[in-house]
Amino acid sequence: MFILVNLKTYPCDPVAVAEAVRDVDESTDARIGVAPQATHLERVAETGAETWAQHVDPIEYGSNTGHTLAESVADAGAVGTLINHSEHRLKLADIDGAVRAASRTDLETVVCANNPAQVGAAAALGPDAVAVEPPELIGTGTPVSQADPEVVEGAVGAAASVDIDVSVLCGAGISTGDDVVSARDLGSEGVLLASGVAKADDPRTALEDLVDPL
Amino acid sequence: MFILVNLKTYPCDPVAVAEAVRDVDESTDARIGVAPQATHLERVAETGAETWAQHVDPIEYGSNTGHTLAESVADAGAVGTLINHSEHRLKLADIDGAVRAASRTDLETVVCANNPAQVGAAAALGPDAVAVEPPELIGTGTPVSQADPEVVEGAVGAAASVDIDVSVLCGAGISTGDDVVSARDLGSEGVLLASGVAKADDPRTALEDLVDPL
Amino acid sequence: MFILVNLKTYPCDPVAVAEAVRDVDESTDARIGVAPQATHLERVAETGAETWAQHVDPIEYGSNTGHTLAESVADAGAVGTLINHSEHRLKLADIDGAVRAASRTDLETVVCANNPAQVGAAAALGPDAVAVEPPELIGTGTPVSQADPEVVEGAVGAAASVDIDVSVLCGAGISTGDDVVSARDLGSEGVLLASGVAKADDPRTALEDLVDPL
Amino acid sequence: MFILVNLKTYPCDPVAVAEAVRDVDESTDARIGVAPQATHLERVAETGAETWAQHVDPIEYGSNTGHTLAESVADAGAVGTLINHSEHRLKLADIDGAVRAASRTDLETVVCANNPAQVGAAAALGPDAVAVEPPELIGTGTPVSQADPEVVEGAVGAAASVDIDVSVLCGAGISTGDDVVSARDLGSEGVLLASGVAKADDPRTALEDLVDPL
Repeated sequence: MFILVNLKTYPCDPVAVAEAVRDVDESTDARIGVAPQATHLERVAETGAETWAQHVDPIEYGSNTGHTLAESVADAGAVGTLINHSEHRLKLADIDGAVRAASRTDLETVVCANNPAQVGAAAALGPDAVAVEPPELIGTGTPVSQADPEVVEGAVGAAASVDIDVSVLCGAGISTGDDVVSARDLGSEGVLLASGVAKADDPRTALEDLVDPL
Repeated sequence: MFILVNLKTYPCDPVAVAEAVRDVDESTDARIGVAPQATHLERVAETGAETWAQHVDPIEYGSNTGHTLAESVADAGAVGTLINHSEHRLKLADIDGAVRAASRTDLETVVCANNPAQVGAAAALGPDAVAVEPPELIGTGTPVSQADPEVVEGAVGAAASVDIDVSVLCGAGISTGDDVVSARDLGSEGVLLASGVAKADDPRTALEDLVDPL
Repeated sequence: MFILVNLKTYPCDPVAVAEAVRDVDESTDARIGVAPQATHLERVAETGAETWAQHVDPIEYGSNTGHTLAESVADAGAVGTLINHSEHRLKLADIDGAVRAASRTDLETVVCANNPAQVGAAAALGPDAVAVEPPELIGTGTPVSQADPEVVEGAVGAAASVDIDVSVLCGAGISTGDDVVSARDLGSEGVLLASGVAKADDPRTALEDLVDPL
Repeated sequence: MFILVNLKTYPCDPVAVAEAVRDVDESTDARIGVAPQATHLERVAETGAETWAQHVDPIEYGSNTGHTLAESVADAGAVGTLINHSEHRLKLADIDGAVRAASRTDLETVVCANNPAQVGAAAALGPDAVAVEPPELIGTGTPVSQADPEVVEGAVGAAASVDIDVSVLCGAGISTGDDVVSARDLGSEGVLLASGVAKADDPRTALEDLVDPL
């Protein structure tokens, strides 16, 4: 299982969380990554944790102001990027452009989507993975794998029918190790989570609890 | 073949073009439709021409200002709608929402896309058809079926591999009957065109020339 | 006082509301207008009611698909347009373009804004009026003139300090004649309202109640 | 005069340009700043150069993915930020929100705008400065101060009439010291420039040439 911790713009210490991510990743079979803000990418990558961007723009080197360039993200040490997170929805043409930009620099890509139909659409653009996040569950603490298991199964089926090589992550309401196990049992190969680790008093313990039942 | 004439916001007489569309449609085997501005939908539908909207928003009845409601488009007499035209690109989640809104009111849907990858993505959302319009050809007078035949073939293949029931239209640079024949020969089941008819001195003759070689 | 009834995409009969607007307008000193969906503009204008658009795009005649052209709105019989409604927020450059498009066709303009600072900004673009709508009050039934009178006074001051010719409308939570009087007493020259009339069982009585205390 | 060098997403070495900015700033009366990509802010600020962000989002600490938080920009060492650059146009409400976010963290703000009307609007939102950039001149090498001096004078007048404390920068086509002098003579208190320095073989010499006639 792949566990990707999205730090959003939470008031956490990104380096401290990254160090916990790195240490727990090394001590378990699970793969764990951390996605800090763009301003923090270099410092987070320097910890040795697997570092992801939260977003890249569908652009190349050139006249773009205030955008996130895939090359700069990769140079900062990131190995992957989220695209089209529910808090950063993109036009279809721009998801396509962002996936191409990321691929150009060998960044791994996870495209987020709301439901199985959009998961199928995202899979058609050729990312490495898609993440299904029903908007009504985000931030509720109710995991999609429990509240709506058929959404996860539907997403796994939709992605597989479009491109068998695109894996599916589960991305809303995950906060416990049992949620991660449920997500795995429904066919997903990983989870996106955020506040459960980023806002925990002790991120290391929170991560250990997450991977413990795997 | 389906020929859909997009009137955009051209300074043409929408009723006169619609009457030509209706008459030529009746006198040939081709199916012809016309997509006027929202303000002209009712008057155009009254001509008896097959009437399409240029866009619907991903909304329901309720608190939305300055948006296009699928129900209002259908009540005005439209039978279908374009979605995500290259001049009106939408977020992936909103294309999904617009397709659902249109389906709710039995409007036929054509989702536009730039390239085969995006055509596959659009097809995954369950529209009736997708239209492939490489942005670099729009308005050039060079038909995609000649400039870039593999884009049309790629789009036909991408749509079919995702959903065999989604047909493909060809949507950039079509202006002559030969272009329509080329598009058909490459596997597309229709064409989108605009200025070739809407800005013609005699839209009726322009339409007759388009369908003549079919 | 100017009372502008925004029909949004409510499931009301736009012609019936327009007839009520026309009749009550003729029987009182208040000026009353109605803003239907674009698809309904022609039929509403034919009633003789003062007809407004809910939105125009910053475009000219040409290659634009699914947009609202000021010329088409004016040809349909509208005499004015809302711009930048809180349900249809625009980029600053596009508000500027929409005001210019509307002015080109002699449409009266009301630019909506959230707070006094944005009212000042909107006034600098040269519209006929600005409407202040604190987002937190929209749809609450609590009028801005009572919940937050200093917002209305601040908006009146902000507009006047930028351009003394730009009048201010009050645009959130207005539902009774007393609310209209409060808005007037705070310096606004009109109100925007929506559900209080559009969703009323008897729009004519709702309008009569609104203008009665004036 | 304030000279702000926007590095956009150019393939330059941001630290090398920043060191040139720092050194030339120290050796002249002009004030010089540099605006790198978000991923480079920390490294650029460490050079001691006056560091600016290219953009901040209208957000607070919380659930935002892929956005630029003013607090993170300030913590990285930036002292100011561009907002609403012509390559990153924002909604009016979001320019207002971004100015407030920047002010909350004591970042200096320069809001960009296309023409005098929009400069007046931007000034009403209370930034420290506005920059006028006619879109038709961006990247042409023709300075707005020469091609269109009345635009600069109009912008200076528009800003002053709204808020006398908001200064005006000149932001398109500046590439020589004479352009900077022209901009100053028309009433602007600074210039935005990009490729003239960022893409120069020798950024230090380019900067020295720019400030030499002042």
